[in-house]
Amino acid sequence: EGEASAKAGSGFKVETNDVTLSVGGRLQYDIDMFDGEAFSGADESGSDSELRRARIFVSGKIGKDWSGKVQGNFKDDGTTNLEDAYIKYSGWDGVDLTLGKHKEPFGLEENTSSKDITAIERTMITNALAPGKNYGVSLGGGSNDFTWKFGVYDHGDEGGNIATGFSGRVTTAPIATKDEVLHLGFGYTQSRLAGDTYGEADQRLEIHLADEKVGSGSITGQSINAYNLEVAYSTGPFHAQAEYFDGEIDGGNFAADTDLEGYYAQVGYIITGESRPYSKGVFKRVKPKGDAGAWEVFGRFSSYEPGTDEAEAFTIGLNYYANAAVRIGLNYVSGDMTEGGVDKDGDALAVRIQYVF
Amino acid sequence: EGEASAKAGSGFKVETNDVTLSVGGRLQYDIDMFDGEAFSGADESGSDSELRRARIFVSGKIGKDWSGKVQGNFKDDGTTNLEDAYIKYSGWDGVDLTLGKHKEPFGLEENTSSKDITAIERTMITNALAPGKNYGVSLGGGSNDFTWKFGVYDHGDEGGNIATGFSGRVTTAPIATKDEVLHLGFGYTQSRLAGDTYGEADQRLEIHLADEKVGSGSITGQSINAYNLEVAYSTGPFHAQAEYFDGEIDGGNFAADTDLEGYYAQVGYIITGESRPYSKGVFKRVKPKGDAGAWEVFGRFSSYEPGTDEAEAFTIGLNYYANAAVRIGLNYVSGDMTEGGVDKDGDALAVRIQYVF
Amino acid sequence: EGEASAKAGSGFKVETNDVTLSVGGRLQYDIDMFDGEAFSGADESGSDSELRRARIFVSGKIGKDWSGKVQGNFKDDGTTNLEDAYIKYSGWDGVDLTLGKHKEPFGLEENTSSKDITAIERTMITNALAPGKNYGVSLGGGSNDFTWKFGVYDHGDEGGNIATGFSGRVTTAPIATKDEVLHLGFGYTQSRLAGDTYGEADQRLEIHLADEKVGSGSITGQSINAYNLEVAYSTGPFHAQAEYFDGEIDGGNFAADTDLEGYYAQVGYIITGESRPYSKGVFKRVKPKGDAGAWEVFGRFSSYEPGTDEAEAFTIGLNYYANAAVRIGLNYVSGDMTEGGVDKDGDALAVRIQYVF
Repeated sequence: EGEASAKAGSGFKVETNDVTLSVGGRLQYDIDMFDGEAFSGADESGSDSELRRARIFVSGKIGKDWSGKVQGNFKDDGTTNLEDAYIKYSGWDGVDLTLGKHKEPFGLEENTSSKDITAIERTMITNALAPGKNYGVSLGGGSNDFTWKFGVYDHGDEGGNIATGFSGRVTTAPIATKDEVLHLGFGYTQSRLAGDTYGEADQRLEIHLADEKVGSGSITGQSINAYNLEVAYSTGPFHAQAEYFDGEIDGGNFAADTDLEGYYAQVGYIITGESRPYSKGVFKRVKPKGDAGAWEVFGRFSSYEPGTDEAEAFTIGLNYYANAAVRIGLNYVSGDMTEGGVDKDGDALAVRIQYVF
Repeated sequence: EGEASAKAGSGFKVETNDVTLSVGGRLQYDIDMFDGEAFSGADESGSDSELRRARIFVSGKIGKDWSGKVQGNFKDDGTTNLEDAYIKYSGWDGVDLTLGKHKEPFGLEENTSSKDITAIERTMITNALAPGKNYGVSLGGGSNDFTWKFGVYDHGDEGGNIATGFSGRVTTAPIATKDEVLHLGFGYTQSRLAGDTYGEADQRLEIHLADEKVGSGSITGQSINAYNLEVAYSTGPFHAQAEYFDGEIDGGNFAADTDLEGYYAQVGYIITGESRPYSKGVFKRVKPKGDAGAWEVFGRFSSYEPGTDEAEAFTIGLNYYANAAVRIGLNYVSGDMTEGGVDKDGDALAVRIQYVF
Repeated sequence: EGEASAKAGSGFKVETNDVTLSVGGRLQYDIDMFDGEAFSGADESGSDSELRRARIFVSGKIGKDWSGKVQGNFKDDGTTNLEDAYIKYSGWDGVDLTLGKHKEPFGLEENTSSKDITAIERTMITNALAPGKNYGVSLGGGSNDFTWKFGVYDHGDEGGNIATGFSGRVTTAPIATKDEVLHLGFGYTQSRLAGDTYGEADQRLEIHLADEKVGSGSITGQSINAYNLEVAYSTGPFHAQAEYFDGEIDGGNFAADTDLEGYYAQVGYIITGESRPYSKGVFKRVKPKGDAGAWEVFGRFSSYEPGTDEAEAFTIGLNYYANAAVRIGLNYVSGDMTEGGVDKDGDALAVRIQYVF
């Protein structure tokens, strides 16, 4: 009576009547090599390899209204972090209610899955300001040319009570055909700090295994809030996207106010002619049309200014999509930073092998 | 040749000839708010949220005789505890042999799955005395109106050797029809302490994220033993259950003897008319008959006396069973304790969202 | 359109067109009892139980060319180590490229799965010298009568760069019929130490829960390299295998050179008449022919000499294969060691219950 099916890059599912259960995962293995103070911290070379992400999920859907997902991420240090652990109610017309751990709605690059982003890593400014996945409650909805989502999240403890955070994002796509997409978006996020150091202010120059980070490690305050602007355009095999972020840590009684600002701009071209898929406010990864796979080239410029420090990273990269499940990426990153008045630079090479179960 | 099927609240399974493999899990997300010394430790309010349980299991069955299960519980702190990891042999007539990590047979509430209990949390006295899941060997059997199970368990280390524990439980159901159930049970458990502090003596007042526990944190001894009595009755939409526990920590050469006593009584009513299912000595959660789900109200009084301290908790709650997989629970708890001669009280509100894959 | 099937001891899989996804796992629960200084460290008895391995894997295959696997091992201490996390490309004629975490090619016993080895534990010398599973890149290929594989691996950090390791193994089977197998193999492995203590030099006497290890715990050096020779023969229900290992820690500027040498020889006989299956350079576990299961007896002698210390372990054992998924093993080990000129001996009994999902 039941039915089972597997799909490349999307796991497998078992369906009986109105109940569906799915299992899948992703695996990203990276090798990074780098040279120079901006990456190694010293004027030397460095290299390392890691399993960047190793996730297994189980998700379910009952009827039209209720769904849920548990996804664990296994790490080399023996810890397992819960990436997703939420229950979703879709019984109200056009509105989804999500409860539990899920990604906060802020940023185009952040809300694009790590298996679908063009470069190996997201940009410094996205990692610095996007709150990522947290426990909370959100409401959202939309169609392919308009989306909205906002939520309240548990950002830890403040005097025995939940330190709440808020995130919201709206996107619109004035053009959203199969061949051409124009995407615009706006997001806002805020979070309590209550005198703590803001842990995400220091960032690596988009090489995850680099030893050096830009930032003083000492930005504290009462709270942080940030907004961003998103724009993206895609026509045929060409795609481009850019985001600007303006964040401010309100020092309150604890410290002076500090700005965290940045932006990035990225252009890509799929040599084999495929287009980058777009759906409900985010892009997906390229699915090759033919048996020979798809090839993509891209370039990205990224700027980040935490307080009085600043960093820039320029990335060029090549992606090979063997099929809907396997992607191999090669990124060259040239970066420089000014930290405490000292200039540092360097360059790096990163390889990623990705398998989406 | 194989067959796959999914079932709401029971995972999915794949069957080929006499081999069955199943995958499933559960997800429980809680938000707790509380006020007063009995919960916050200070005369203040507190709040927190957590993923209470996030489990994924794989289980298998070969022929009629052999089955096994591995279930991991992913926690927010990065650790993963193995909930179940056992192999079961059912080849002897009417007797199951279980080897590995599994729940010790002691207590009605304890042996009712956490996805099936009426309140969000089990009672103080159950959490204080029931040994939970441990490595060991057990034998058990029975039918719907009589069950028995006993086992020997590894409770840690005592001088380089296994510190053994023992648990046993027998239940009988003089009435066990679809509409009416009368359940009686008796359990006994013992464990070695060998001078260690008994770690489960201190208990929160049935709010898992509360900061305060009743108990002195200093009850030590040679060993602990406890027995309990269970009674439950269900007729149509009405159900009631109560348990009495009497535990004693034998101080031996280490300390004076200490009593750990307690009981609880609970009554519930399913407004939408369903009955609470009963099977082999335990109750299951309500399965809604109609598309609109099932609603249940309940009340519970719980008393716990560790040594010279004492605590009481009174809970009233509402459960909404959206379908066989999704349950939302709202509990109000009023609690007070006397600890070291000091009285503390407070009240709390807890919300649980549960999805059983 | 999709197809699902389950197989005893091999998990289940879901197949749609050219995409296959599989889920499975293994569970090994052990109880060890021992007596004497060689096991307990003191002239006393000891006992313990543990979940030796509790693994769940998800693997996938797309078309003929790409496959991948993620396997997590859940441990009692709350950590989860990634056993396998690799992507494999098989698109070149007769050559597999593996990227990510996988087992290094060195040793017959090591490359035989832990669910397929005859004794409960591998030998001291295998555990001392085989590098096990690490991140890296390997190439391999072969048929049932010839296999080769070599790889370069990330063995940690040396001055900010990857400390590389290398392993390689070739095997040949001059006889490889269903009834008779003659296997010969050779392996080589090397790794950087850079002044660190070699962590695997100290070994228990093949009882995993024993408290005592042979070895001084202080062997340091510049690098380690080792080679081994494998021979195995199987005819009908009889099987035998032996390996010799010669390892040397090059002290470099850090210490004097140290030898790590050892060997083992094992013979087994399957009373119920089955043969031990052989495939591509490794043996598999016995699959019972009849419903009553299969019985196997075996003996093993093992010798290990780390530096100036030495140890011997003699094991006799009985295996019951209830079906393709369930195995129960009983091993008696008699061991002695000379450590720092002091002689220690003892004996031990180990029981393993194994379920392969």
